[in-house]
Amino acid sequence: MKISLCQINPTVGAISKNKVQIMDWYHRAIAAGADLVVFPELVLIGYPPQDLLLRDRFIQEANHALNEIAAESTVPMVLGSPLKTDDGLYNCAFLLSEGTIICHYKKILLPTYDVFDEDRYFTSGHETAVFDLNIHDKTTKIGLQICEDLWDKDYACNLAKDMKQNGAELIINISASPYRTGRLKDRAALIQNKVADTKIPFVYCNLVGAQDELIFDGQSLVYDEQNNLIGQGVAFEEDIISVDVGVAAPIELSQSSREEKIYNALLLGIRDYFAKTGHKKAVLGLSGGIDSSLTACIAVDALGSENVHGVSMPSKYSSDHSKDDARILAENLNIDYRVIPIESTATAFDGALSESFVESDPNVAEENIQARIRGTLLMALSNKFNWLVLSTGNKTELAMGYCTLYGDMNGGLAVISDLSKTDVYALSRWVNKNAGFARIPVNSIEKPPSAELRPDQVDPFDYDVVSPLVSALIEDEKSPSELIDEGYDPELVKDISRRIRINEYKRRQAAPGLRVTSKAFGMGRRVPIVNQFDELK
Amino acid sequence: MKISLCQINPTVGAISKNKVQIMDWYHRAIAAGADLVVFPELVLIGYPPQDLLLRDRFIQEANHALNEIAAESTVPMVLGSPLKTDDGLYNCAFLLSEGTIICHYKKILLPTYDVFDEDRYFTSGHETAVFDLNIHDKTTKIGLQICEDLWDKDYACNLAKDMKQNGAELIINISASPYRTGRLKDRAALIQNKVADTKIPFVYCNLVGAQDELIFDGQSLVYDEQNNLIGQGVAFEEDIISVDVGVAAPIELSQSSREEKIYNALLLGIRDYFAKTGHKKAVLGLSGGIDSSLTACIAVDALGSENVHGVSMPSKYSSDHSKDDARILAENLNIDYRVIPIESTATAFDGALSESFVESDPNVAEENIQARIRGTLLMALSNKFNWLVLSTGNKTELAMGYCTLYGDMNGGLAVISDLSKTDVYALSRWVNKNAGFARIPVNSIEKPPSAELRPDQVDPFDYDVVSPLVSALIEDEKSPSELIDEGYDPELVKDISRRIRINEYKRRQAAPGLRVTSKAFGMGRRVPIVNQFDELK
Repeated sequence: MKISLCQINPTVGAISKNKVQIMDWYHRAIAAGADLVVFPELVLIGYPPQDLLLRDRFIQEANHALNEIAAESTVPMVLGSPLKTDDGLYNCAFLLSEGTIICHYKKILLPTYDVFDEDRYFTSGHETAVFDLNIHDKTTKIGLQICEDLWDKDYACNLAKDMKQNGAELIINISASPYRTGRLKDRAALIQNKVADTKIPFVYCNLVGAQDELIFDGQSLVYDEQNNLIGQGVAFEEDIISVDVGVAAPIELSQSSREEKIYNALLLGIRDYFAKTGHKKAVLGLSGGIDSSLTACIAVDALGSENVHGVSMPSKYSSDHSKDDARILAENLNIDYRVIPIESTATAFDGALSESFVESDPNVAEENIQARIRGTLLMALSNKFNWLVLSTGNKTELAMGYCTLYGDMNGGLAVISDLSKTDVYALSRWVNKNAGFARIPVNSIEKPPSAELRPDQVDPFDYDVVSPLVSALIEDEKSPSELIDEGYDPELVKDISRRIRINEYKRRQAAPGLRVTSKAFGMGRRVPIVNQFDELK
Repeated sequence: MKISLCQINPTVGAISKNKVQIMDWYHRAIAAGADLVVFPELVLIGYPPQDLLLRDRFIQEANHALNEIAAESTVPMVLGSPLKTDDGLYNCAFLLSEGTIICHYKKILLPTYDVFDEDRYFTSGHETAVFDLNIHDKTTKIGLQICEDLWDKDYACNLAKDMKQNGAELIINISASPYRTGRLKDRAALIQNKVADTKIPFVYCNLVGAQDELIFDGQSLVYDEQNNLIGQGVAFEEDIISVDVGVAAPIELSQSSREEKIYNALLLGIRDYFAKTGHKKAVLGLSGGIDSSLTACIAVDALGSENVHGVSMPSKYSSDHSKDDARILAENLNIDYRVIPIESTATAFDGALSESFVESDPNVAEENIQARIRGTLLMALSNKFNWLVLSTGNKTELAMGYCTLYGDMNGGLAVISDLSKTDVYALSRWVNKNAGFARIPVNSIEKPPSAELRPDQVDPFDYDVVSPLVSALIEDEKSPSELIDEGYDPELVKDISRRIRINEYKRRQAAPGLRVTSKAFGMGRRVPIVNQFDELK
């Protein structure tokens, strides 16, 4: 049986457009000889649709489009769409064929943790689904499941085994599983467990594309009953994977480097955010530092050099090397580059505030004014020319609150806000290695990081120490006490965990940030601002 | 039996402090002769604790404090705290007495909609709880339930009836039910339904205090078996309600006006946000308009006039009456007031951008620069003096996107962001009526609203038309098509719904806003930024 997995990139809410896209790929699959065509979870409405699911008209439109697709169907196809019944709303997989809906399966396991809120919207199904599919006069029993149904180890069930017991000869899982580092290996291991349990082939079709903070990576997988990989979709791009199950020869799991994966994830994140919100051009501040340099590279690769505008906004504290590094980067990237000095504007603010500030010493107030002038200049360019501002802060800074709200945090999209400073270095080195030359000036990578908001300032952290500790607290969800028990400096751990806690208010107003780790700041981490829990007190 | 309901105001995460507070009120209740003392839902840890619930140490600390309270207990008490077992985490009501935990009840109905995420954290209990309580040598069977257990009409159950069938002679519901307009009536009606069903008394103890966006109003209620109200807690303040059930005489439900309730809700919202984040002083821009005037009044009543700083930041487009109105308001409120003109700073920005803007006509870019200068000035004062900025935008503006990100949207707390422009007028008139003089200058209320960002500008909406339509779309969750079917101008409905959709990106970066309606922008409304669903297309 020749199965074609269409890992496509729909848009949340764009039901008619998604339908056209589905039919286009469906006909391509048929032209390539498919006996069965498979699409991802909720592909018709996009994922996650969030509160759009609460609107009756939205569900009605999806239902209407589904019926149209069914009417146009010839070869059997599986795709995800919601179903509303008197009992509730279900996240469903539909099997369509020869002009009708043959059957549907209601998702049983509804993830409600991290970035997932499915219990908010959906009612849980109660029955595993095994359907007869007639192809070339042979009936095959197909088990249908949806995303989390595969990740059943934290639930008291084994849905794949249940399907096998109900006669399934092949399992199809349609997913909308967002990328994070290491995810491909997790999925492959899990599927191989299921194949080991059931001794039947497993077909896994995953969504592609970015939606707000989430990036879906595709990388669909097909394993045969001997647990050999026989099909794999590319990463971060639409793809059609056609596999003759029972015939196809084993292949090797294709894995690119961690840095390359993250880079391509962020590239897709930018590209889709722009395309799906109707933007074409980006603007960002170039400080000569590593964060903005890396962000600019990704933006150029996502949007094209003609669509990225770099702005250097030097103050009296900016070093010559910073200005040079920014200019060289812009030349390397072949992007529009302009210099807008902020000194006269800073002086105007000083004048306006002189009466209020007459008896006080310079402090963070004056430093933040500079960051906010820069943020305002970028927004002025954005408002004037419809360029979308990219913010360039990294996760370590965002955790520590070492960033200025309404200043360098300004932007429609935070590109590297889920990258630790350690990862920013790793990706920057990878960029240069991959380019074969110092696309990012070596000086930007090697000099001590500085915000350059006062004379001789350098960032007040040893990132080699702080960055992994932040990752341990956020991504590994370790408690401060555990880290101290592991031997880390108690004062440092205390300081970092306190900063993370008291700076929640800044992150709450941050631009949406592209998620690439197991725990990003944003929709998957819901921590109160008013929060007096300090286990070290 | 004399029951004392302690509707107290704990702080999320402050377990030790909350414990002290609970014991303090407990002893006060005992001194007043209580036979049974009742505290609200999750009172020991605060509500909603969000992802703090995922931290083992947090649950351990709560458990430890609960055991300490139990050890110190004499007279029976009921209070809410989490319980972790091998099966999961439960939202529980504990009955403590004479040094031990007598029993506990696991919440059955877990709200997972609007602002509630309980399925994210808790496992659902499966058994209603009826406990024997011995008081004065008489055993009374008490049914315990928690918040949503009362709101069971959308679930296939009637927990109060179940309890009655299991012998309950009195029901106690401990709640953390956030305020919104009309909530007291809803609760009273619901409880009266349950009393009608069961013919036994119903004791409802609700939390008080603000937590991020949510404001808990207290207003605990006690009904006797004849369905007479026999006890009511005050609104928006801590209170102890001691009722001799079976003896107490009926009272009238006390209800203040809608405007007074909303005003006091926001007052508590400000007071708690400041107190619980360790802030004392506020700063806000005073434009002479109605939004900032109303916000200033609430701030003064919440924090004291000595703790509120008003700043007028006139531009060349500011009218004389605006400046006068702002000054008069500040005088009326007896607050610190300063004038910081923005013209020279605006000129500096014009200069910095002249090369970039050389071939373009003035547009929203120049207007937003003014708003961002003001936002930056307020933040400079905030950074210098540790004053917390209050933002003053209303819900209608926020819906329409008629506000400047990183400008007038700046602030740690958005005070009136859940008030429609219509409500802003209503509350302002109430303020003046209540004060017995024009505390808010009549001119601020009566003049046409204007942002004054260009010559002769007035707000481009007829708020009398737009404000109710926004409320219908957001709070009543009507679809644009429904409104058109009801006879509203299709073009206007289309424009408003489009603006609401495309401005989600601004609201995502807004300050947390105090919720007073059935649907506020914020945690209870989760709409994607990338969203191509337009039912009118």
